[in-house]
Amino acid sequence: MTAEGVTASGLLGELADVGRDRTRGGYSRHVFDPAEQELRDWFVEQAGRRGLDVERDGNGNLWAWWGEPGPGAVVTGSHLDSVPGGGAFDGPLGVVSALSAVDLMRARGTSPSVPLAVTVFAEEEGGRFGIPCLGSRLLTGSLDPATAAGLRDADGVTFAEAAQAGGLDPSRLGADPDRLGRIGRFVELHVEQGRGLIDLGSAVAVGSTVVAHGRWRLTFTGQGNHAGATPMDDRRDPMLPAAETVTSVRRIARAHAGTRATVGRLTPTPGGTNVIASAVDVWLDVRGPAARSMVADVEAAARAAAEEEGCGLAVREESWTGEVVFDSALRDEVSALAGGVPALPTGAGHDAAVLAAHVPAAMLYVRNPTGVSHAPEEFAEDSDVDAGAEALATVLEGLCR
Amino acid sequence: MTAEGVTASGLLGELADVGRDRTRGGYSRHVFDPAEQELRDWFVEQAGRRGLDVERDGNGNLWAWWGEPGPGAVVTGSHLDSVPGGGAFDGPLGVVSALSAVDLMRARGTSPSVPLAVTVFAEEEGGRFGIPCLGSRLLTGSLDPATAAGLRDADGVTFAEAAQAGGLDPSRLGADPDRLGRIGRFVELHVEQGRGLIDLGSAVAVGSTVVAHGRWRLTFTGQGNHAGATPMDDRRDPMLPAAETVTSVRRIARAHAGTRATVGRLTPTPGGTNVIASAVDVWLDVRGPAARSMVADVEAAARAAAEEEGCGLAVREESWTGEVVFDSALRDEVSALAGGVPALPTGAGHDAAVLAAHVPAAMLYVRNPTGVSHAPEEFAEDSDVDAGAEALATVLEGLCR
Repeated sequence: MTAEGVTASGLLGELADVGRDRTRGGYSRHVFDPAEQELRDWFVEQAGRRGLDVERDGNGNLWAWWGEPGPGAVVTGSHLDSVPGGGAFDGPLGVVSALSAVDLMRARGTSPSVPLAVTVFAEEEGGRFGIPCLGSRLLTGSLDPATAAGLRDADGVTFAEAAQAGGLDPSRLGADPDRLGRIGRFVELHVEQGRGLIDLGSAVAVGSTVVAHGRWRLTFTGQGNHAGATPMDDRRDPMLPAAETVTSVRRIARAHAGTRATVGRLTPTPGGTNVIASAVDVWLDVRGPAARSMVADVEAAARAAAEEEGCGLAVREESWTGEVVFDSALRDEVSALAGGVPALPTGAGHDAAVLAAHVPAAMLYVRNPTGVSHAPEEFAEDSDVDAGAEALATVLEGLCR
Repeated sequence: MTAEGVTASGLLGELADVGRDRTRGGYSRHVFDPAEQELRDWFVEQAGRRGLDVERDGNGNLWAWWGEPGPGAVVTGSHLDSVPGGGAFDGPLGVVSALSAVDLMRARGTSPSVPLAVTVFAEEEGGRFGIPCLGSRLLTGSLDPATAAGLRDADGVTFAEAAQAGGLDPSRLGADPDRLGRIGRFVELHVEQGRGLIDLGSAVAVGSTVVAHGRWRLTFTGQGNHAGATPMDDRRDPMLPAAETVTSVRRIARAHAGTRATVGRLTPTPGGTNVIASAVDVWLDVRGPAARSMVADVEAAARAAAEEEGCGLAVREESWTGEVVFDSALRDEVSALAGGVPALPTGAGHDAAVLAAHVPAAMLYVRNPTGVSHAPEEFAEDSDVDAGAEALATVLEGLCR
């Protein structure tokens, strides 16, 4: 317990009712929607309560400063948005742990000798606009702002429109070298998204690598028509090649050892029960060293299936991130500061992995006893949550000396 | 041109901007949503302008009376709702043609010697709540009102909640024998949804039969999880058996001659690119004499595919309508009154087919030069639209003598 009288698990509990998804289960908190905005407002209020100065950058990321903003800062944080129907921990855990670490450092009488900032990155999941780590990609200049501005959500709203409604100036989107230049070292705490820590019997680990990963969108086009009035032989139904592609993805992934490939999102247009679809969008998430070669095989199979049905196919790479190996010196320092915790690779992307191309960056993972993530079953015990915040506080103390 | 100074095609043109779907193309006008409500308001205003007395029944259907409501009435009309991204004609054509027929009868100096009503049925497409012809099924008592009340749209809103928001009392849903008892004969004009009239070289036809048809919902359940952190061998991904079922539907439909089967709607939950789905709903539309036997084969294939992936499967019949043969005396009378137009069978369901089990009912079809329906390409030439309204006026004159 700290001067603020609340633990990291207690802070997380304050968010338990925000953005619950009553149809999917879990939480749906998409960038700039009312639930995510409520979480942002909560963060700004919490930072203010701790005397941290909050600024919002031109890309929608939040920065809460302990000390004067400036170069050589130690920065920590994560994100508040979720996948649709996601868990309570993915994102918010890193933010509440950062706030809690500030409390713990103060309770221990520590004051950082370099600037310290707590960040909240925008649209980490890509749950609304498709590209993950949108805020950190824009900050670092790894995503063209015009491309970002034109991304559309499922309702056709552009990122520029949503950002403007959220109070941003769309003309200010893009690389922010001054702000990026302030980051001396970055540490992101995150719930683990697999079973690594269960097997290691540890509450906390440090990240070693993030596997290469990307997203592709396959759009099959046919002829929309009436489900009852159209003979089977007169159809060009894009649902057929889309379905065959889902099965091809599984088969081809198995033929590429170490590759993980998923179709979790598939949208027929118009999507009526009594309507032959005119188009079907299939989103493909592929991770692993052979990801791109696997996608080429999937595309060939998809094209053959589309031609068989007289359908068209367009394939677009929506995002790509090569393998990230976290800075080994920082990794070892963080591990030692946290008490010699083990190192874990991950198949999950993070803002820390985007920043790692520009600044020394590290991850801390907190044990997830279900091994499940991006689903309501995602979990962490309160004792592990608080152990994670304690470890983060100790790491930040060490890095800020 | 009539006393109202407007033709059926002119009336239809007044609706051209209501409910356009900017993401799907075409129109999305779902029962009790703002676009459909705007069309209802327009109808009430148009009926009032013609001196027709409008009543809304307890199931959300509208009735505009020329003369005192009472038994032996001749009733005509259709619906204003659409499939998602549907065409401009399916539904509204029958409503505007009915209004125009009233104008034409007056212009010809005709006055009906029996009550005449123009109707608008609610949720004919089942585009929002899943069951087609919801308004006419409730009216006739062929659908249990408690079942209807509990149907949910994609946002989880129940039909009872939507009906209440639309001004209905949900406790009044259900069979309405008094109102049904007023209908002496029913005629619905509708755009044709296939190529029958193109081949016959006629602007108008009369309906002979509606094929048996039903809707089923197959829900595959697995384990939602992270797309990057979950090894391929640890997955129970319901998208796989869902996709295999789509291909099975095509294969099994081809093995059942005369059967048409479609998966036009498929929804993964939660539906995130980086999320293995926890569940996938597949809606199956099947039509033809062998529909139910075909669905049994599909269910067996789906169950095997689900088991192969360690997934669960629940199958629910959402609606079923046996083959309808329209009253032959009325069919012949309508055909003769319309100038000896040909008779056409259809694979498309209609409110007239629901009513046909209770009262003599007939359909008039208007030529669709694309042969496409439930899609933006659905079309009818203005001259054919106006010819359809003229034919309807002549038929009503004859039936109201």
